[in-house]
Amino acid sequence: MNLQDDERLDYLLAEDLRIIQSPSVFSFSLDAVLLARFAYVPIRSGKVVDLCTGNGAIPLFLSARTKARIVGVELQERLADMAKRSVAHNGLDEQLSILQDNVIGIAKKIGYDTYDTVTCNPPYFPANEASARNKSEHYTIARHEVELKLDQAVQSASELLKQGGKAAFVHRPGRLLDMITSMRQHRLEPKRIRFVYPKEGKEANTLLIEAIKDGKPDLKILPPLYVYQANGNYTEEVRHLLYGDE
Amino acid sequence: MNLQDDERLDYLLAEDLRIIQSPSVFSFSLDAVLLARFAYVPIRSGKVVDLCTGNGAIPLFLSARTKARIVGVELQERLADMAKRSVAHNGLDEQLSILQDNVIGIAKKIGYDTYDTVTCNPPYFPANEASARNKSEHYTIARHEVELKLDQAVQSASELLKQGGKAAFVHRPGRLLDMITSMRQHRLEPKRIRFVYPKEGKEANTLLIEAIKDGKPDLKILPPLYVYQANGNYTEEVRHLLYGDE
Repeated sequence: MNLQDDERLDYLLAEDLRIIQSPSVFSFSLDAVLLARFAYVPIRSGKVVDLCTGNGAIPLFLSARTKARIVGVELQERLADMAKRSVAHNGLDEQLSILQDNVIGIAKKIGYDTYDTVTCNPPYFPANEASARNKSEHYTIARHEVELKLDQAVQSASELLKQGGKAAFVHRPGRLLDMITSMRQHRLEPKRIRFVYPKEGKEANTLLIEAIKDGKPDLKILPPLYVYQANGNYTEEVRHLLYGDE
Repeated sequence: MNLQDDERLDYLLAEDLRIIQSPSVFSFSLDAVLLARFAYVPIRSGKVVDLCTGNGAIPLFLSARTKARIVGVELQERLADMAKRSVAHNGLDEQLSILQDNVIGIAKKIGYDTYDTVTCNPPYFPANEASARNKSEHYTIARHEVELKLDQAVQSASELLKQGGKAAFVHRPGRLLDMITSMRQHRLEPKRIRFVYPKEGKEANTLLIEAIKDGKPDLKILPPLYVYQANGNYTEEVRHLLYGDE
């Protein structure tokens, strides 16, 4: 096991897996956990792609829920390398592969109309929001629309998916309208939305949305998901997602 | 006080007003109550229009929250007549006026770019959903897109509003995408959405949405509103909306 610089090997408790993270380079967020649980995946077989996979958290989470082959696509070499080492450390090379490549145009390389599910936790913030930019270039590229715009991620998801395949995205609620517009422009019909609220009485701060390629219009708004209780502890639902059955 | 046929004089408890309803012709729904509380209205002055006003429930509710002049527009003569008699019975003729007219093209008659707030509880169901059609013609027109399509209601709302004026609609969550598309086509930028859930753990069954004419994109998803508790009683929030402070 090769850990570089300030990397550490964290536990994914619910999945009983381990993942390489680094506070200065990249650590996955709760949003990745939420998306990995929200997305429908085929159970016994099939093919899944995770776009903007970062250090591979979503493929690792998904590997506990499906026997499908999972490809994680990550532009940044350093992050893709962390992801590859995590996959190897968990002995998951048969099921998971990490591709260091650009999400834009990825279907040309790994196949059009081929996949059952595409997940994506894309960069959230406009490229020009300088104030909010992280100092580390790794975080900037992962969090800002510098190298990849939302519409490009949606387009790639659509190109990869079979008819009837499912695209699941996590984003900020403020981008709901852009997300929906972009999905519909790329043959992805939104079917399920779940809003995530930091706690009761607050506005939603996260959007989970799933669309079906060439699906019929029939949108459902699922029950809200609360992250924290009034006392500041995680809600039971989130504890379960993070820590599994205790 | 002239009550016709099976009409009855119901109490609006929270507002201490009375309203003429008829089980065979038209009764307002909880959605009208929710919309009247959700919409921002100017408090001391200004001008408000309620489109598809039915028996005038929303103008009556709003009259308890604002001194603005309120116009209710209703296509159906019988419903407009009920609304007019309710306004008169409550002594609100100075503040509220009911116009029996078509929502389509109404700005031409009562003024473009003039109003601070437009509310609308439009017909929800596609005209061709024969199975769901009510037998009474009054209910059919009120509930199905026979005489008025969503996009036409949104267009009229936009035409009536000043720049910066607010349009508040209630609809089914399944029409969220149509609503947003239509609003943006008519210069209405969605700013606040609140989903209404029948109870905890269920999917949302009602959508409250407010847009600002020529507003900047910045959508907020408000905390969910639950109608019933697990025991089948109204939640405290809905009890308060319906019955006021008890």
